[in-house]
Amino acid sequence: MKPMRPRTSELGGFTDHTLLPIDGTMDQPSSTELNPPAQPTAPIDDGISQRGRQAAGQPISKLMSLALDNPSLISLAAGFVDKGSLPQVPTQQALSTFMDDPDASRTALQYGTTFGHTELREILLAEAREDGATNVSIDQLLITAGSNQLLHILAESILDPGDIVLCAAPTYFVFLGTLAGVGAEAWGVETDAQGMIPESLMDTWQELNKRDLARRVKAIYIVPYFDNPRGVSMPAERRQKVVELADRWSSDVGHRISVISDEAYRGLQYEGDSVPSTLVHDEDGSSVVVAGTFSKVFSPGIRVGWGIIPKHLVTPMCDLKGNIDFGSPNFSQHLMAEVLSQGLLAPHVESLKQTYREKRAAMLAAAEEFLGPLAEVEWDRPHGGLYVWLRLPEMVDAGPDGSLLQRAQDLGVLYVPGQYCFAANGAKVQRNTMRLSFGVQSCENIREGIRLLAEAIRSVA
Amino acid sequence: MKPMRPRTSELGGFTDHTLLPIDGTMDQPSSTELNPPAQPTAPIDDGISQRGRQAAGQPISKLMSLALDNPSLISLAAGFVDKGSLPQVPTQQALSTFMDDPDASRTALQYGTTFGHTELREILLAEAREDGATNVSIDQLLITAGSNQLLHILAESILDPGDIVLCAAPTYFVFLGTLAGVGAEAWGVETDAQGMIPESLMDTWQELNKRDLARRVKAIYIVPYFDNPRGVSMPAERRQKVVELADRWSSDVGHRISVISDEAYRGLQYEGDSVPSTLVHDEDGSSVVVAGTFSKVFSPGIRVGWGIIPKHLVTPMCDLKGNIDFGSPNFSQHLMAEVLSQGLLAPHVESLKQTYREKRAAMLAAAEEFLGPLAEVEWDRPHGGLYVWLRLPEMVDAGPDGSLLQRAQDLGVLYVPGQYCFAANGAKVQRNTMRLSFGVQSCENIREGIRLLAEAIRSVA
Repeated sequence: MKPMRPRTSELGGFTDHTLLPIDGTMDQPSSTELNPPAQPTAPIDDGISQRGRQAAGQPISKLMSLALDNPSLISLAAGFVDKGSLPQVPTQQALSTFMDDPDASRTALQYGTTFGHTELREILLAEAREDGATNVSIDQLLITAGSNQLLHILAESILDPGDIVLCAAPTYFVFLGTLAGVGAEAWGVETDAQGMIPESLMDTWQELNKRDLARRVKAIYIVPYFDNPRGVSMPAERRQKVVELADRWSSDVGHRISVISDEAYRGLQYEGDSVPSTLVHDEDGSSVVVAGTFSKVFSPGIRVGWGIIPKHLVTPMCDLKGNIDFGSPNFSQHLMAEVLSQGLLAPHVESLKQTYREKRAAMLAAAEEFLGPLAEVEWDRPHGGLYVWLRLPEMVDAGPDGSLLQRAQDLGVLYVPGQYCFAANGAKVQRNTMRLSFGVQSCENIREGIRLLAEAIRSVA
Repeated sequence: MKPMRPRTSELGGFTDHTLLPIDGTMDQPSSTELNPPAQPTAPIDDGISQRGRQAAGQPISKLMSLALDNPSLISLAAGFVDKGSLPQVPTQQALSTFMDDPDASRTALQYGTTFGHTELREILLAEAREDGATNVSIDQLLITAGSNQLLHILAESILDPGDIVLCAAPTYFVFLGTLAGVGAEAWGVETDAQGMIPESLMDTWQELNKRDLARRVKAIYIVPYFDNPRGVSMPAERRQKVVELADRWSSDVGHRISVISDEAYRGLQYEGDSVPSTLVHDEDGSSVVVAGTFSKVFSPGIRVGWGIIPKHLVTPMCDLKGNIDFGSPNFSQHLMAEVLSQGLLAPHVESLKQTYREKRAAMLAAAEEFLGPLAEVEWDRPHGGLYVWLRLPEMVDAGPDGSLLQRAQDLGVLYVPGQYCFAANGAKVQRNTMRLSFGVQSCENIREGIRLLAEAIRSVA
């Protein structure tokens, strides 16, 4: 609420004959202006929309401001990538190829189309087909500002207020904010070391059916590769089962239930066999939406992501994308297309994985050394991605209002409270958890951060 | 609507005990799968949200596909910029400065913040202060993907379904789509050669008051510099009056009525005195939102725009921006900051203006030659921007369903039907109008396009 703005000047030259207030009383502007009322006037509401209010207070804002306000903290919270590994040389090489050419440079500097740069989409299409998704066509490829924008546009396209999305417990907390932003409800489904558990997914569906809420389910959200926040991956059979359940339930409720497969971390695999995209389980291309990005494997600053979307979502999602930004920056897309067509990505990713392997080893070794001796503290060993998920003794509240977060900050280390990663409904919120990232910090800082964290845990447990 | 998807496989290994449909009948999945029903099953709805449906069918999509499907057309429709003038050399110069530096390049390739690159925002702040908006502070500067995204985020932040925005008749048609996308209503206010007429604005308010709709008004949208589509500008006095009316009416209705000043074309001024931003009329910084962009004066492919927003909108707009894309691509922002701090923009704009002056002259000369002889055909002479607005005889329907658009396409020329630029409510829709752009085509093509257009008009008038 803001105070009423003083009327600073006359509307010289105009007869204001329009001031009939809705309460029926007559306003007399000229006398009011000459003799402003002495008593305080009614405050003017800021007039924020419901959407504007729903967007407020996402946890990421609080975490970012904590980190910004305390630059000396060792932040194991940020999902940022390792700065020293960012691709200066490959970017320069790709840039010089098209920037030295008068026509190619100007094509990149001009407007593009809403769906994105065709050459880039064709490269992504070829990769999807190599992966086994042979039925995908070029019109299903949409370029976005990172995979996060794809998730946002998808949420806008399919979710009305009160609609439900089933997601893992824990899940990517920014997506929970996206759902809250459109007024949708998230329901958590239990996970184990192989991600979302299909039996729990079916139990959740049954529970929703009992409450007459299954008809509001619009999507199942999975992060099947080295997920954010737990670092675990879903085997192919689980992904396939999720797709089959979505298809079956679509028939039951009479509307399409999408499987949103967030594959942002797919490229950051440090060990194990590769698993094809969830897309290959969607035989008729009607239910799976894949979100991908070059942010983690190349550069978040260039910020090019993409979606592979079922045909029935192409028009609404492109229309929404058009309304949001007319399409992602053409220059960034030409740059990424050049990086890919010159074969500059693969060698970069190889060296990047080596960096992250070392950081992962540093974090796991420090965990073993400092957290291992603590009772009832356990963690998963990720095969890829940027995160280690920590479970503390049941009675420790690692949440934003618990004493551990404050204690950790006092000691100089920051983490993401696991509580942020749980939906309000469904599987129980585990306040005794946290997400640790080994992306940004040096191996030395990772070790020191874990040491401080162990000290904080000891002091509150 | 899509046909029901066949159940392609068993859910091997799981007992599906959850299939209790909401209509209460029991499903028997295994027998159904073994003996698929011969009769057609119920179709599955696509499940598109209301937002997704509202986004559909914006005119820009139709126009773009018309142009793409007919590459030989002389398009006087697209609001694109002149390709040959795009800044290859200044961009290379700015890029090399930070890309040659390992640390600066990696800072640009890393994530940025939601509100945007501080150096860039400080440059924009200094310009706003030089302009006379001395009370603006750095937190009011938000970097967006073009000015259009600023308009989108603002609409999301302040407009609930049924809310009303007053805009010029004609106005920027993409913004009408943005309003429709959030379920808001646009009301058109009459214009003359100096843009929105304050007396008509007051008449519109009175009309809304009569209908008990004034309480739904949330904003007044103006494009005060060389507007899209009419090419006319509002003198300072008119801008000031609009701000004063918005402030007065805010008090009357008890909520903030914003003045949205879309200043996208400000840099493209070819003659006349410069007028300060509408921001300078907002003495306490509570009502005016300015949208700006480097798309028209530098490069739409880099796609950096900005907003200067009142303090009460900072939090909801930043939160929404965070949900949409976490902030605009950091790389583009570092590039633009470098362009500005090296002083590369001003000389580029000077040469750009010379190019557009010639194109404007070509269009006006062709209009004089080919349209001048036609009865009741008239146009405004723009002092800047990219557009010439044409009015035809009253009975000519230049709209998407009229015969002229088809006739023009058959002859080989495309325009934007003026009808798209009118709100559904308020001032009368003028179907006998069109927007012509001199941005993209060569002087020769502009002349030929106008010649063909005159032929089309003659054949239907």
